[in-house]
Amino acid sequence: MKRREFILAGAALAATSLLPETPAWARGRKVRLGMIGTGMRGQVLLKELLRRDDVDMVALCDIEPVMLGRATAMAAKAGKPAPRTYGADGDANAWKRLLEQRGLDGVIIATPWELHAPMAIAAMQAKVAVGCEVVAGITLQDHWDVLNTQLQTGTPYMLLENVCYRRDVMAVLQMVRAGLFGELVHLQGGYQHDLRAVKFNDGNPDHPYGSGVEFGPKGWSEARWRTEHSVTRNGELYPSHGIGPCAMYTGINRGNRFTHINAFASKARGLHEYTVAKSGGTTHPSTRVQFKLGDIVTTTLACANGETILLQHDTSLPRPYSLGFRVQGT
Amino acid sequence: MKRREFILAGAALAATSLLPETPAWARGRKVRLGMIGTGMRGQVLLKELLRRDDVDMVALCDIEPVMLGRATAMAAKAGKPAPRTYGADGDANAWKRLLEQRGLDGVIIATPWELHAPMAIAAMQAKVAVGCEVVAGITLQDHWDVLNTQLQTGTPYMLLENVCYRRDVMAVLQMVRAGLFGELVHLQGGYQHDLRAVKFNDGNPDHPYGSGVEFGPKGWSEARWRTEHSVTRNGELYPSHGIGPCAMYTGINRGNRFTHINAFASKARGLHEYTVAKSGGTTHPSTRVQFKLGDIVTTTLACANGETILLQHDTSLPRPYSLGFRVQGT
Repeated sequence: MKRREFILAGAALAATSLLPETPAWARGRKVRLGMIGTGMRGQVLLKELLRRDDVDMVALCDIEPVMLGRATAMAAKAGKPAPRTYGADGDANAWKRLLEQRGLDGVIIATPWELHAPMAIAAMQAKVAVGCEVVAGITLQDHWDVLNTQLQTGTPYMLLENVCYRRDVMAVLQMVRAGLFGELVHLQGGYQHDLRAVKFNDGNPDHPYGSGVEFGPKGWSEARWRTEHSVTRNGELYPSHGIGPCAMYTGINRGNRFTHINAFASKARGLHEYTVAKSGGTTHPSTRVQFKLGDIVTTTLACANGETILLQHDTSLPRPYSLGFRVQGT
Repeated sequence: MKRREFILAGAALAATSLLPETPAWARGRKVRLGMIGTGMRGQVLLKELLRRDDVDMVALCDIEPVMLGRATAMAAKAGKPAPRTYGADGDANAWKRLLEQRGLDGVIIATPWELHAPMAIAAMQAKVAVGCEVVAGITLQDHWDVLNTQLQTGTPYMLLENVCYRRDVMAVLQMVRAGLFGELVHLQGGYQHDLRAVKFNDGNPDHPYGSGVEFGPKGWSEARWRTEHSVTRNGELYPSHGIGPCAMYTGINRGNRFTHINAFASKARGLHEYTVAKSGGTTHPSTRVQFKLGDIVTTTLACANGETILLQHDTSLPRPYSLGFRVQGT
């Protein structure tokens, strides 16, 4: 950035700070939040939000009455005012009405992956601040669309990459900033999480994990939508748990940037073997599915400042949980 | 291989087995071995060979009188007949005379990397069986030359990849063959070994490790020749400790083969920072050297049977030793 551009940008920033739309927290009142997607993940986030005395949950949306009911009950049990609800009628566009609710400061998006980008874009356009569960989108274009909408509207957007806020990850960030590793040279992270019991169940809302080999319309919760990504896509489907902390450590977009990427996928065996073992044979339709997602996807990145980063995506084989972080310097 | 080719190959193999040159061990006499390169590594191998009652060490070659003298003393101390020695005069071609010694069954090559291929090729041409320290050669053409010479001469050649024979590595090989991992999907290995104290010393034969910041002509042992590879080359310089066991596990060239490869190198910082810290400033010439070898080189391979393999080369940064093996299956 040239000096003149910098001064102009600084002036624009100062002007933005003086806009009349001062955030709720700066005006001393509670933040009014809505949530789109009150399933298993949404309920985890809702539990934390209901514990806060600076947040009002004023709107909840889910097209599964079971999940919407559970979320409403959580608010009641916490002694909070009843949020307005959307989607009990199963209308897939109910979330658009939530965004029109007057006085909404922000929205938490905890829906299936493919809905994140369109919902976040619509929210930003409606001047409703966004906290979006990972991933930000499916395609590269999705990501550009989210970014460009943020730049055009100025509405705050945050990807809720929770791993960046793990205590150990933040402790290492402090160590990095304190120079304890010297100059950083190589980092590793990833998503090594055996999701076989998440990708399949028996479709019963009371048995979301490990109860069967159904997925898609006959599955429940993540098995209903997430497993399909393992059928039709092959790649690093879920990079942010690993790359989020590594990007913080290496200062990506804060004086550094990714310059090269490469990824190799192994063969796909884990999900097939799981459904065969779990169903006791090869007669169940799930055992006939050709899964496209390689069991292990190994990605290497290079950064402008010379660091290399290794990412591993590994969700279909038996293994202990590990995000496999490494920070290595001089 | 087509059936007819298979039968022909089988016939050729049977004919080879019936050749008059029966190996020494099959004729009940001791194996007569020579060694080219009796430096630090050669002496480690020599110590083991001198313990055997089925081996006669009949020839030793080194152009460093100090090292040749130490090796000769080892043989004497072990109560063995004095081997014939070559190279005390510093003649760089002395090893060629060793290969002409009558009655030599085999030769151990433990010289600097760039000499491995020409020495192994000459030995095979002289019908002297070869046990060669890693690496087999420097260039891709070196490796083809070694392989083609072996195929043309029929002289036995073995790359002495010691890690393949570590007890834990062999135990895992047995587990792989017993099917305890199911079908293999992904493997990892490498060479994560802090060699800073090996790459530099003070040139005194009694201080080979960590005694200074000299290398090249002023260095001693590996610092004399190995460090130069970090100055002029950037890549996976030393893959066999990692890929050897992984190749055994995945049956490379036994029904499987490598099909793809990719490697990323990080920036080079470790050796420079080491020489600065060790010499206490930036006046020593070693601190002005531009090292080309990235501190961490990350290599990914794919195999015909669908496995992926990750290799890491990491010899210039402070770190604990680890070859980082992983074997992952269904």
